Amino acid sequence: MRKKIKKINAAILIIGNEILSGRTQDKNVEFISKWLNVQCGIKVEEARIIPDQKKTIVKNVLLLSKKFNYVFTTGGIGPTHDDITAQSISEAFKVRYGYHKEAFKILEKYYGKKKFNDGRKKMAKMPMTAKLIYNPSSAAPGFIIKNVLSLPGVPSILNSMIENCKRYLIKGLKIHSNTLNLYTVESNISKKLESVQKKYKRDVEIGSYPFFRLGKIGVAVVTRSTSKAKLKSVHKELMKLVKSKKIQILKI
Amino acid sequence: MRKKIKKINAAILIIGNEILSGRTQDKNVEFISKWLNVQCGIKVEEARIIPDQKKTIVKNVLLLSKKFNYVFTTGGIGPTHDDITAQSISEAFKVRYGYHKEAFKILEKYYGKKKFNDGRKKMAKMPMTAKLIYNPSSAAPGFIIKNVLSLPGVPSILNSMIENCKRYLIKGLKIHSNTLNLYTVESNISKKLESVQKKYKRDVEIGSYPFFRLGKIGVAVVTRSTSKAKLKSVHKELMKLVKSKKIQILKI
Repeated sequence: MRKKIKKINAAILIIGNEILSGRTQDKNVEFISKWLNVQCGIKVEEARIIPDQKKTIVKNVLLLSKKFNYVFTTGGIGPTHDDITAQSISEAFKVRYGYHKEAFKILEKYYGKKKFNDGRKKMAKMPMTAKLIYNPSSAAPGFIIKNVLSLPGVPSILNSMIENCKRYLIKGLKIHSNTLNLYTVESNISKKLESVQKKYKRDVEIGSYPFFRLGKIGVAVVTRSTSKAKLKSVHKELMKLVKSKKIQILKI
Repeated sequence: MRKKIKKINAAILIIGNEILSGRTQDKNVEFISKWLNVQCGIKVEEARIIPDQKKTIVKNVLLLSKKFNYVFTTGGIGPTHDDITAQSISEAFKVRYGYHKEAFKILEKYYGKKKFNDGRKKMAKMPMTAKLIYNPSSAAPGFIIKNVLSLPGVPSILNSMIENCKRYLIKGLKIHSNTLNLYTVESNISKKLESVQKKYKRDVEIGSYPFFRLGKIGVAVVTRSTSKAKLKSVHKELMKLVKSKKIQILKI
């Protein structure tokens, strides 16, 4: 009998006009995806970048939270007028938006009563029944409500908080991956890759990505699977191909 | 009478498992968004990152092409089994997928008849009625069908092709932008920003983004509008705020 594989997936929702205008390079998709993959065995299956518009946020949060096990939002939880993620998520889930007691206490303690102005207080406003994701670098917490985890947009702050998401996540099976860097061109190996992919289509995902390195071109063949054994079998088949075509391997 | 503003928008669809797994940092959203903004007055209003799955590509292409003036796809037009963007777009628009005469000629000439193998020939396969987007760096062309423009995923190649998209695009009104880098914290200016944003909500978009520079923290206030005059008025209001709060400006 085949063991049931626990596949857990997630989507990332990047909220911010500055990403869509090209002003700012997003770094959060890469970071969160890798972390979920390696640390939690959770596969990110879609990411979206949307503007700071309440209607758009509400719609996307509802849609993605239905479709995926988890949704990670980034951006829009700061103190200014364009930070509307918390309100929008409250509206999406029809939960009261207001001062979160614990968040308020944390921020009041961090800034001191005198410097705890309205802008800063706003960062304690969120869906009132949410649970907090603690922020070790700048105090203002993220939050989780239902299966939606909201984190800030600034990468350094987000990165410092990500470990605090773990307690809320169910782990999937670890996804193993293997990279074979070959000094060849894609068209030289595409037929064989296709047939190997067909043979292992249920268990192993094979991707091929051209690279340029020190004036030489090559292809990185990346294999990914929850089964180490299947990954090994695919590796063997690829090595046969490498030998028969006399392809040089780049060892990094 | 108010002059009618020609707003042209676009979406970006990044196709590739390597981006979703966190293996590769996407750079195409930033590049395309900025180029469309600055060169064409076209505003990117959504970006999505999806896996190399036909069903998912078909669904997203149809949905985005209905919703936006233009859709830019990147990735999945190379020679290997996981390159399925061209087939998927053909299927989405119910157009025959096969060798594109002109593309075939270009590639045959580039590789020479002898080295023009099946993998390379695959790059001439696309929706047969598509128009080509020429590729000055590695020959394999992108294509446009209806309002969907398909480009490769490798940033250096994509970047070399982008100018060849221009002939297919209707230009929107140029979007002007202004950045004011202030040595202050967001909570110090959030109230005023909000009121200025409310006053100009139809014409100017105001964003605020914290920064860290040489040990000092600050906020970049970015204003964007198709109207230079309105942008100027907002700038004046912001300068009043700067003076009243005695905020230092960082000049870059």
